[in-house]
Amino acid sequence: MLGVEIPLLDRPRADILRAAAICFMQRGYAASSIDDVARSLGSTKGRIYHHYPSKADLFADVFRAGMDMNFAAIEPVRVQPGPAIGRWRKMAAIHCGQMIRTKPFQRVVWEGVELYLRGATTPEQREEFTRLMQSRDAYGRIFREAIAAARDEGDMRFGTIGIAEQLMFLTLNSPLFWYTPRPTETDEDIEAIVGEVVAFAARGLGAAEENTR
Amino acid sequence: MLGVEIPLLDRPRADILRAAAICFMQRGYAASSIDDVARSLGSTKGRIYHHYPSKADLFADVFRAGMDMNFAAIEPVRVQPGPAIGRWRKMAAIHCGQMIRTKPFQRVVWEGVELYLRGATTPEQREEFTRLMQSRDAYGRIFREAIAAARDEGDMRFGTIGIAEQLMFLTLNSPLFWYTPRPTETDEDIEAIVGEVVAFAARGLGAAEENTR
Repeated sequence: MLGVEIPLLDRPRADILRAAAICFMQRGYAASSIDDVARSLGSTKGRIYHHYPSKADLFADVFRAGMDMNFAAIEPVRVQPGPAIGRWRKMAAIHCGQMIRTKPFQRVVWEGVELYLRGATTPEQREEFTRLMQSRDAYGRIFREAIAAARDEGDMRFGTIGIAEQLMFLTLNSPLFWYTPRPTETDEDIEAIVGEVVAFAARGLGAAEENTR
Repeated sequence: MLGVEIPLLDRPRADILRAAAICFMQRGYAASSIDDVARSLGSTKGRIYHHYPSKADLFADVFRAGMDMNFAAIEPVRVQPGPAIGRWRKMAAIHCGQMIRTKPFQRVVWEGVELYLRGATTPEQREEFTRLMQSRDAYGRIFREAIAAARDEGDMRFGTIGIAEQLMFLTLNSPLFWYTPRPTETDEDIEAIVGEVVAFAARGLGAAEENTR
């Protein structure tokens, strides 16, 4: 999990982001401080302030990195030709794997969305968070279009698209709330978990059994 | 939503709990204060302190009330005779309806679990929270036993029971994160939403189409 690649970032900032993601995940935004992040890095506060003027900026950059990782991860499959359900299944498995493999970052994305929706952001943060939310909505639309296409192609069957999208994401995101890494865990173990989650989501969206894995 | 019955409570405490649930839902535990709750009640802080020595006690009592409502709601159906899948479907619909109709309380239950798992509780709170978590686990077992029985009876098909239970609850709880009441909403509108959510969960758990609604 900690070996995760952070796209487009120089090494010192990537180290700070990784440590910050873990702090925010463990304590939540309100109870975390730049001090905590510095302590977990064995570093000075100055090193962090050199890159981030405030805790809010650091949090926003972890949020952004988490989103960027997800976009980068689905990029190779999102425009593949063939039936939409096949494309959706690949994207769903990648997305769910991200929730497991980059969990600290994805918990920050989750908390960031909560803070935004709660209006718990300052006016300066608000602008930055609005951009991040737009990016998240664009990501959501990729999945929404895939399930809409799969329904048009007769491979999925569900009621309201808005509710279907929400249920799909809650299911695929759910390892954020119950997955805890085990020391002996292999990539195959993770893939087995992802397989169960994606099968549940596919069935939930009314896919035929042969299309659930 | 605000007309919700709170079992076993005298009226003044019920009013405080309702106001507190909404405050905690809107701001989160860390950012809420007894002052906020008093203000939203148009009352003095003293009135609240008369019943609750601290914000933590108030939060724990909202958590407890949220759990009590859920236990009370499923009680009439949880031991009904007949196939487990029919019992499960009724309980699932009631539980999901609770997430919509008593949302502020259920958001507090959710946040309470998060705080507990994060270890963000003081030693005095810890004991009380441990009891609340035990109660929540007992509630979870009722559903777990129902889906296990439905699988034994050939009416559900899923992989690991632990993962299936998590995915089921995340799905049924999901209105906590995306449902917003509309002024014109009727009971039938809410039941239609509940129907879509329960159908998704039933399909996800491998129920045959005739058992999804």
